[in-house]
Order: sequence, then structure tokens, then C-alpha cells
Amino acid sequence: MTVKRKPAIKKTEVRLLEVFANPSSNRDYEIEIEAPEFTSLCPKTGQPDFGEVVVVYIPDKKCMELKSFKYYLQQFRNKGIFYEEITNRILDDMVKACSPKFMEITTRWRPRGGISTNITAVYSKDED
Amino acid sequence: MTVKRKPAIKKTEVRLLEVFANPSSNRDYEIEIEAPEFTSLCPKTGQPDFGEVVVVYIPDKKCMELKSFKYYLQQFRNKGIFYEEITNRILDDMVKACSPKFMEITTRWRPRGGISTNITAVYSKDED
Amino acid sequence: MTVKRKPAIKKTEVRLLEVFANPSSNRDYEIEIEAPEFTSLCPKTGQPDFGEVVVVYIPDKKCMELKSFKYYLQQFRNKGIFYEEITNRILDDMVKACSPKFMEITTRWRPRGGISTNITAVYSKDED
Amino acid sequence: MTVKRKPAIKKTEVRLLEVFANPSSNRDYEIEIEAPEFTSLCPKTGQPDFGEVVVVYIPDKKCMELKSFKYYLQQFRNKGIFYEEITNRILDDMVKACSPKFMEITTRWRPRGGISTNITAVYSKDED
Amino acid sequence: MTVKRKPAIKKTEVRLLEVFANPSSNRDYEIEIEAPEFTSLCPKTGQPDFGEVVVVYIPDKKCMELKSFKYYLQQFRNKGIFYEEITNRILDDMVKACSPKFMEITTRWRPRGGISTNITAVYSKDED
Amino acid sequence: MTVKRKPAIKKTEVRLLEVFANPSSNRDYEIEIEAPEFTSLCPKTGQPDFGEVVVVYIPDKKCMELKSFKYYLQQFRNKGIFYEEITNRILDDMVKACSPKFMEITTRWRPRGGISTNITAVYSKDED
Amino acid sequence: MTVKRKPAIKKTEVRLLEVFANPSSNRDYEIEIEAPEFTSLCPKTGQPDFGEVVVVYIPDKKCMELKSFKYYLQQFRNKGIFYEEITNRILDDMVKACSPKFMEITTRWRPRGGISTNITAVYSKDED
Amino acid sequence: MTVKRKPAIKKTEVRLLEVFANPSSNRDYEIEIEAPEFTSLCPKTGQPDFGEVVVVYIPDKKCMELKSFKYYLQQFRNKGIFYEEITNRILDDMVKACSPKFMEITTRWRPRGGISTNITAVYSKDED
Amino acid sequence: MTVKRKPAIKKTEVRLLEVFANPSSNRDYEIEIEAPEFTSLCPKTGQPDFGEVVVVYIPDKKCMELKSFKYYLQQFRNKGIFYEEITNRILDDMVKACSPKFMEITTRWRPRGGISTNITAVYSKDED
Amino acid sequence: MTVKRKPAIKKTEVRLLEVFANPSSNRDYEIEIEAPEFTSLCPKTGQPDFGEVVVVYIPDKKCMELKSFKYYLQQFRNKGIFYEEITNRILDDMVKACSPKFMEITTRWRPRGGISTNITAVYSKDED
Repeated sequence: MTVKRKPAIKKTEVRLLEVFANPSSNRDYEIEIEAPEFTSLCPKTGQPDFGEVVVVYIPDKKCMELKSFKYYLQQFRNKGIFYEEITNRILDDMVKACSPKFMEITTRWRPRGGISTNITAVYSKDED
Repeated sequence: MTVKRKPAIKKTEVRLLEVFANPSSNRDYEIEIEAPEFTSLCPKTGQPDFGEVVVVYIPDKKCMELKSFKYYLQQFRNKGIFYEEITNRILDDMVKACSPKFMEITTRWRPRGGISTNITAVYSKDED
Repeated sequence: MTVKRKPAIKKTEVRLLEVFANPSSNRDYEIEIEAPEFTSLCPKTGQPDFGEVVVVYIPDKKCMELKSFKYYLQQFRNKGIFYEEITNRILDDMVKACSPKFMEITTRWRPRGGISTNITAVYSKDED
Repeated sequence: MTVKRKPAIKKTEVRLLEVFANPSSNRDYEIEIEAPEFTSLCPKTGQPDFGEVVVVYIPDKKCMELKSFKYYLQQFRNKGIFYEEITNRILDDMVKACSPKFMEITTRWRPRGGISTNITAVYSKDED
Repeated sequence: MTVKRKPAIKKTEVRLLEVFANPSSNRDYEIEIEAPEFTSLCPKTGQPDFGEVVVVYIPDKKCMELKSFKYYLQQFRNKGIFYEEITNRILDDMVKACSPKFMEITTRWRPRGGISTNITAVYSKDED
Repeated sequence: MTVKRKPAIKKTEVRLLEVFANPSSNRDYEIEIEAPEFTSLCPKTGQPDFGEVVVVYIPDKKCMELKSFKYYLQQFRNKGIFYEEITNRILDDMVKACSPKFMEITTRWRPRGGISTNITAVYSKDED
Repeated sequence: MTVKRKPAIKKTEVRLLEVFANPSSNRDYEIEIEAPEFTSLCPKTGQPDFGEVVVVYIPDKKCMELKSFKYYLQQFRNKGIFYEEITNRILDDMVKACSPKFMEITTRWRPRGGISTNITAVYSKDED
Repeated sequence: MTVKRKPAIKKTEVRLLEVFANPSSNRDYEIEIEAPEFTSLCPKTGQPDFGEVVVVYIPDKKCMELKSFKYYLQQFRNKGIFYEEITNRILDDMVKACSPKFMEITTRWRPRGGISTNITAVYSKDED
Repeated sequence: MTVKRKPAIKKTEVRLLEVFANPSSNRDYEIEIEAPEFTSLCPKTGQPDFGEVVVVYIPDKKCMELKSFKYYLQQFRNKGIFYEEITNRILDDMVKACSPKFMEITTRWRPRGGISTNITAVYSKDED
Repeated sequence: MTVKRKPAIKKTEVRLLEVFANPSSNRDYEIEIEAPEFTSLCPKTGQPDFGEVVVVYIPDKKCMELKSFKYYLQQFRNKGIFYEEITNRILDDMVKACSPKFMEITTRWRPRGGISTNITAVYSKDED
């Protein structure tokens, strides 16, 4: 049986995401950002979800500014959105903001009904 | 010596497994579902077995709905079934329900007679 | 607001609990039994609960036979019963079966709605 | 130098906290409730705080109903309140709701400025 | 129901346990000996049991010689004996061999039927 | 200098190892069996060795029956045999019993003289 | 042999430590502050020391303001001071700032020359 | 939005980094150096940052002398510099000092605003 | 059977242990020193023993200087001495050197013949 | 700046390393030997170094005899030798003794000056 799910949120403010010029753009290197304090709402029940967001990326011309990333994540605090959507949305927004060579978003969610979920989405400029 | 083992259960209700449309079907991404609260019965002794089920999959058109997956797993609570059968059965049922690009089922069982067992079965659409 | 809760189960078969004569009754000593494979049903929702039961006791004349304790715990598998009741019920039944000098039952439950519960009840012959 | 801090929130809805009759009120026993998914706002900066709340209590006539406790904690999600106030407020509200023989609230907060804080407040009926 | 259990083994060779004069008998101090490689047989099923033995004692005039303790423990390798008996037997034998001021024996056993057992017996010269 | 070592044991009873028909022979899947309760004797000193045996295999037509594997391992309890021999012997015997597509045996041994040893041997049908 | 050690630092700016009125002064409760990012200099060698500072206290009329505590600890960054002095100095300064009912300072230092040191000093108003 | 960031520090004294002749230059081997006691300043706020630096390299003709590496890292103690710059700067300086066949620098930073960062940069002589 | 053991070493150079004046002798506080890099020889076999030494003490007028403690411990590197003797010897020597109010020495030894040993000796000025 | 380092030790007695005929030379398998009790001296300061040595190898015709390996490692106890030299020396000596198909030596050293070092060297017969 296929259940219908409408997109949970119309837009997030990507412009919140600030970037700065990569200080070592001549060399590929990897940046990992761990944000273990993430919360949003379940679009079905309105109950809070708690998880963590991990970003790994190889910058091209721009690096993500961390404080603005924190504010960006806070936008989801009181929005109802499914795990799969959040993960892909964050990847879309961050790729748009800093055009990295590579980016991987992992979200890990605390158990609901005895079941935990982790989701990983990857973007690679080569494949564009 | 080869011992005979009859198939333990005739059918599980696959229709219990609900799905919803993959919100990001344009991109491959990975979903991991951990269900550490699993129990069934040993078909030989009738004694309870306890284990955990971990699913990792790449959705194609459909994603698994988690609550229905919880109910699906509860079907095994009072059924006698061997470890090897459960693992492959869950893989068969879930592949049938959501036609993923890739799916891996791992079951990990608490020790019996001082011996623990873990089983991993994999499905890949490419190899179909 | 006070919610009404009716006693969940009428009786458990205490006679399932076998004992044997304490081989060192001249000396106080402590026995700890850990049963991490426990499951029952939530009386409200009918959904399975999973937890572990830990017994610590000082035997007097009798020791608990472990296999019968395993069968005793399996009685709860398909019964609806609240955490607080189970814990006190197991303590009552085991005290009745082996009349220990001291007994402590701890139950630890997997999270529901993001919240975990542990319950500890104690019996001491001195206080009788 | 002493900084002034005004009480952060006027009232919480204690009536949200439901209770049920203690099924074993003839015996003292201990209940531990762990709620690792707690969030509120810093009253100074408006930024989210994340922590966990642990309750240990010995019920008298009434036990806390867990689902209502979950809703009670969600009230703080978008309120600005200091760590010290939250801890004592939860203790006050829960003592009022279930009149326990003993209750201990511990809150543990994720690091801010490289510094973590844990707070523990205790109520005992004997000392009333 | 009370099950009969006959004493599993008639005698162990306590004389195997060698001692040496306490080099600091003017001062109470504590010695902890951990022997994680212990095995015996279940007297009911003949199947091997595996566990660990921990001794904590305050020597009086004599200290236990460790190599002889190792040989002493090996005596149980192919004997059928219950957990409760082993624990008290080791305590009896070692107290007889070195007359300590205090001695505590803990045995911890690997799970059988999903259930683990730990046993602790204590001897104190003061209480003799 | 090369020390001579005679083969420690002439034969093990492979026929103890029972198998059953692979319930999912149409699909490759992996089975891991952990046996942490293993003991044998050192052929030089006669002293007990303690270790754990881990088997990972991909079944072809037959699966290993776990209880018979437990009995098979118990054969080594009072035999003197070197680590290297045990590991390869178990691999030989199990390959003979169930003709797997792939099998890996790992043995891990507790420290002797401050030194620990782990041994891993692999069989692959493709390379036959 | 007794080595002379001159007091390493003349004064720290205690006035940096801000406090606020205890919001629940009618009840004793405990606050634990963990500051794992502490560094100072060894007065002998000028080399950096790294450690963590843990404060546990029961407030009386005043609570410590955390941000000012962070700045207070940063004063030691480029000062040469021995472990024993730092620990007692922080205790003195904080007791002076907030007059707690009880306060315990623990400092834990990373190894130097293969040796680690932890120091704990306690203040209690009752003993004043 | 792209924020401007000026290079934080003009130069570090690379000559501080001493090397010695690789004693086994005929064979490729890997050296890992873990420096968990690193601190610098945030160029925006002036507040201290704490992290750890891990170097993995394959020496060519020269090996890094560890004491000089310690002094080299101490240069950053009171300098304002961003995470991305430090990581690439250390890699540049060390490659310049010892011309390794391969070198990887990882920096891991304690959380700020609830977010942690790890950065990894790699140099390979082959790609020069 | 009682085995004779002659004292293993005649004297250690206590004068190696340097002290300095307690900078806070007006207040009792506790110092813990962990030395995980300790080695001596077994007096029976001449084989090396490896362990760790932990000192906890409350200084009176004098504190232990850490570097001299490191040199003091190195004296045992090539001496044959039993575990029980070392522990009490270190306690005697350190009490003599710094006359503490309280001192506890714990030694923890790596396994020999599958058996580990920990020894704890305590000195208290009050009991003198 | 390049510092000169003279080879620290002229020779180690490789003949100490005993071997025995590989009992399963028809099959490649892997042996891992962990020796966590290693100590040598720093050639600069004469101070003891502590570390662990891990050997992983695939035997060809010969296997390493473990007791002789223990004695071989003890040769370094009172010799001054740098980390890089020890690692490569052990690899050279063991390859010479048992001519393996593959061998990897890892040494892991306790922190000095807040910095830890691990070194890994590999030999492969194919590359000879």
C-alpha cells in the first residue's frame, strides 16, 4: 500500500547560509561538521523529532561559515518535515550555497517506536 | 549428517508493509533502519529468540513507512522460524514492497548455548 | 488529573518457580541474575515492550532454579501489564517462592516516546 | 558583581501532568525516568539549549503517567528559561502533581562556550 | 516446588593452594586477584560452563601464591558443580589455606538460556 | 633456530558437524557464528588455553547446524593442540562438512607471557 | 629533600566572576560545571599544561554566571602556576565570589613524563 | 552571502621544525603523530579554540623531530587563525620541512555553538 | 603449604623523593598521581612485570614533587621484587618522604598465567 | 634544520627468534601477535619509553615461536633506541628469521610532551 505524503515545507531560507573564500583552494581537503543538537517536528503527529546532522564536504571556491549553518539548522525547529526530506533538503541548500566538489549529509535520529533511522545523501560535482 | 528442516512459516502479510513516494528519487541516497526490539520463537524448542534487525537500502520510487515496518516485524513474535529463514524472508518481503535499488538485511541474535549468530543478506536491482 | 488503571493481570503461575536447597545456608551470600531478554505488552496500546530484569538476592533456605525462572518470565510475553506492576509482581512471586533474606528486582525498559524507565523494588526479611 | 535575572517564565501548566494510583503503595520502590530529548531557549540570547532530564522518585499514593510527562516537558521547547530555574521548576511541578515520598531531578546540558553544566535538586517528604 | 540437588563434588585438593608469609603483616592492605579463565561442567547436562573468579582479601599472616591458585582453579575443569557450590567452595578452601582477615569471592558466569548469573560470598575473621 | 612440532591431534570427529539444507540457496548471504567460550590445552605445557572462535561463511547447498557446532568445538577441551593447527583444522573440518562458497575462521587467544595471538584462515570455493 | 617553590602568581581578578541571585534559595541543590578546555603554563619550564576543571557547588544566595567563569579561567592561559596552587586558587576565588554552602574543585591534568595528576579541594560553609 | 576573511597570520617559523635522516629510507613506512593538546585563538572573537592535531606521513629522506614539532605547534597558542587555515598551514610547513612521500593532517576541534569541526588535508609527492 | 620468600630488595633510595612546601596547608585537599608506566622484575623468574601505580594522598606540610617521583619509580626497573612488597615499599617510602595526613597506594598488574592482581595499601596519620 | 642521529644499536640477537614448520603451508592465513608490554630507553635522555608491538604476518614455510619472540623483545629493555629504528629493526629481524610472505609491524608509544607516536612498517615477499 502506498501512503501519500505531501511535501512538508515549501521553502527554507538558503540565503541564511553564509560562505567565505576557501583559503586553500589549490588543494582538495575535507571538512566535517557535526551538529548533534538538531530538532524538528513530525509532520504526522506534530511531536518533536531529535537527531544529529553530519556534513562532510570538499570545498571548491567557498567554505561554509559555521555560525550561519547553526542558524540555518534552527529554521527546522518548529517545522513539520520527514527524515528523508530534511536530509535531501539540507544537501540541496548547502550545495546551492557553497558549490562544493563533494558533499555528504548524514542525519541520525533517536528511536521512535523502538526503531532508529539514519539517512545519508551524497552530492558530487563530477556527476553533475 | 544432514538434518531436515521444514520451512517454518507459510506466509507473512507483506501487505502490512506500507510505502510512500520517494521525495528525492532523482538522487541515490541511503536509509538505515535499526530495529533492536525483535523476537520470534525457535521452531525446534518453542523457546523465544531475541535479536535485532538492521535494514540498509537505497530507495528507487518508494520509501518504507516506518510504523508499518514495526507492525510487520511484530508478525514474527509468536511464530517459530529459523534465523536464516527470517533474514531472507524479511529481505524478500521488503524488496517486494518497495522495489529498492539496493537492500541489505542484517539480523543479530543473542547467544544460545554460548554461541551468537549474525546473518546478512543483500539484494541489488542491478543483478536482477 | 488522576487516570484510572485496572490491575493488568489476575495471576501468574508462581508454582512455575522451582527452588533447591541452599548449599551454603550457614553463610550469607549474594546471587545476581540478569535476564536481558524480557518482553511483555503495553496494556494501553497492545504494543510490545522490551526490557531487562535483574534480580539480586541473599538466599535463606532456598535458591532459585534458573531454568524455571526463565519459564516464569516467559509467562509475561503476551500479557498486557504496566512497568510498575511487573516489577512488584516479580518481587512478590519470587519472595513467595524462595523466602530470601533480601531481594531486589530492577527492570530497565527501552525508550518509548523518547523516554526510558527503570524501576527498582526491594524486599527485606528483617522488615517483615 | 551581581547580575540581575528576572524569572524567565510565569507559569507552566502543571495540570498537564497526569498521575495514576500507585499499584504497590504498601512498599517503597524507586522509579527512574530518563528524558534525553529536552530543549528550551536561553533567555539571554534566544538560542536553543539542549539537555536531558532525569527523574528519580519513590511514589507515595500516585505514579507519574509517562506520556503526560512527555507533553509537560514539551512546554519548555520555545520558552526562554535558565538551567537553574528549569530544574527547580520541574521538581516543584512534579512534586505538586504526585506528592512523592522522595524525588530527585537532574538536568544535564550540552556544552556552551566549552563549558557543560549539570544540576541536581532533591525533594524529600520527610523534610517537609 | 523444591528440586533436589546432591552436592556435586566430594573434595577439592586444598593442599594445592600454597601460601607465603605476608611481607607487611603490620598493616592491613587489600589484594584483588582476577581469574577470567575459569571453566567447569554443569552437573545436570554435563555441558561446559565458563566464568570468571575474582578474589579480594586482606591477608593476615599469609598471602596466596598465585601460581598454585591457578592450578587449584584448574581442578574444576572437568568436574560437574553448580555455581552456588563453586563460589562457596572456593571461599572455604582459600580461607582454610591462608586464614585471611577478610575475603570476598565473586564468580561471574556467561549467559545460559539468555540469563547470566553472578555470585558473591564474603568471609570476615571478625565474625568468626 | 627451527623447533620441531609434531602434529598435536590425529583426528577430530567431523561427522559431529551436522548440516541442514540452505533455505535460500538462490541468493548469496553471509552467516557469522561467534563462539566466545572455547578452551583447549597447550601441547607443550598441558596448561589450558582460552580463546574465541568466529566463523563467517557464505553457504552453498548446506548450512551449519549450531548445536552440533557447539559439540564439535567441545572435542578440543582436553586435547593439546597449537593455535595455528586448531584454526586450520576447524576450517578444514567445516569446509568438509558444509562445502560453503566462502569461509573464514578467526581464533583470538587470551594473553600468555603478556602476548596475545589472533589467527585468521580463509577458504574460497572459487580458488579450489 | 625539600625544594622551594615561590607562589607563582600574585593575583587573579576575582571581580571577573559574576554572580546572579539564586532563583531557588529555599532549597539546597547541586550545580556541576565542567570546563574541559583549560590551559596554563608550567612555572618551571614555561611549557603549556592542559587540563580540565570541574566545579560542584551548592549555592546559597548567589549562583555563578557561566560566561564570566569562562573569562575567569582564561586569565591563567599565559601564567605560570603549579597544579596545587591553581586548584586552591580557583576554590578561594569562587568561594569569595558566590559564598556557596559547599564547593568542590577538581582539576585533572594530561600526562607529563608518563604521569597524570588530579587534585580535589573542598570548601564547606559549615566548617567555617 | 560571501563573508570576507583576511588571512589570519602572515608567517609561522617553519625553521623551528627540525628533522633527522630517515634511518630506513629504503622502505616505505608510516608514522602517526597525535598532538591532543593544541590551542589557538578565534580571529573573530579572540576567544581560545581547543583541538587536536594528527599527522600521518611516509618519510622520504627525513623524519620529523618530535620535540621541535611540539614547539612549532606552540607558536599558534596566542595567534588568531581559522580552522581551515591552520590545517593547511601545518601541512604546508611540514611538507616544506621534511619533503615526505605522503602526508595527511587532521585537526579536530571542540564544539562551538553546539557544532564540532574536523578538517583533513592531504599531500602526496606523486601528485606534485 | 607455606613457601618461603626472602625480602627481594634491601633498600630503595628514598632520598630521591623530593618534596615542596604545601601551598595550601590550611585546607585538606586530595592529590591523585597516576603512573601507568611501571615495570620491575619477577624475583622468581627474572621476567619483567608491567603494571601501574596510583597514589592518592592528602598532604600535610609537604607535597610530592612529580619528577622526582618518576625517578624514584624507575629504581625498580631492573630489580626483582614481589607485587605485595613493591606496594608496601612505595607506601613506606612516600610516607617517610612527605608525612601526609592520608595516603593510599594501588598497584595494578598485567595478567600472568591468565590471572591479574591489584593491591591497595593505605596509611592514615590519625591511626599512627 | 637537520639533526644528526647515529644508529642507536649495533646488533640484536636475531638467533634468539625461534621458528617452527608452518603446519598449514598449503593455505595462506594470517597471524596477529600483540605484545602490549614493551619498554626501551630514549637514546637522548636515557629515560624509559613504553609502548606496544603488534605483528601481523602471513607465514610461508615457518611460523614464529611466541616464547622466543617474548625474549627477543626483552633485549630492548635497557637499550637506547629511537621509535623509527625499533620498528624497522624488529621487521628486519623477524623477516630474516621466518621469511614470511607478508609482515607488518606496528609500534604504539605512550605520550611524551603531550604527543603520542605510532609507526607501521610493512614487508611483502612479492616486492622483494
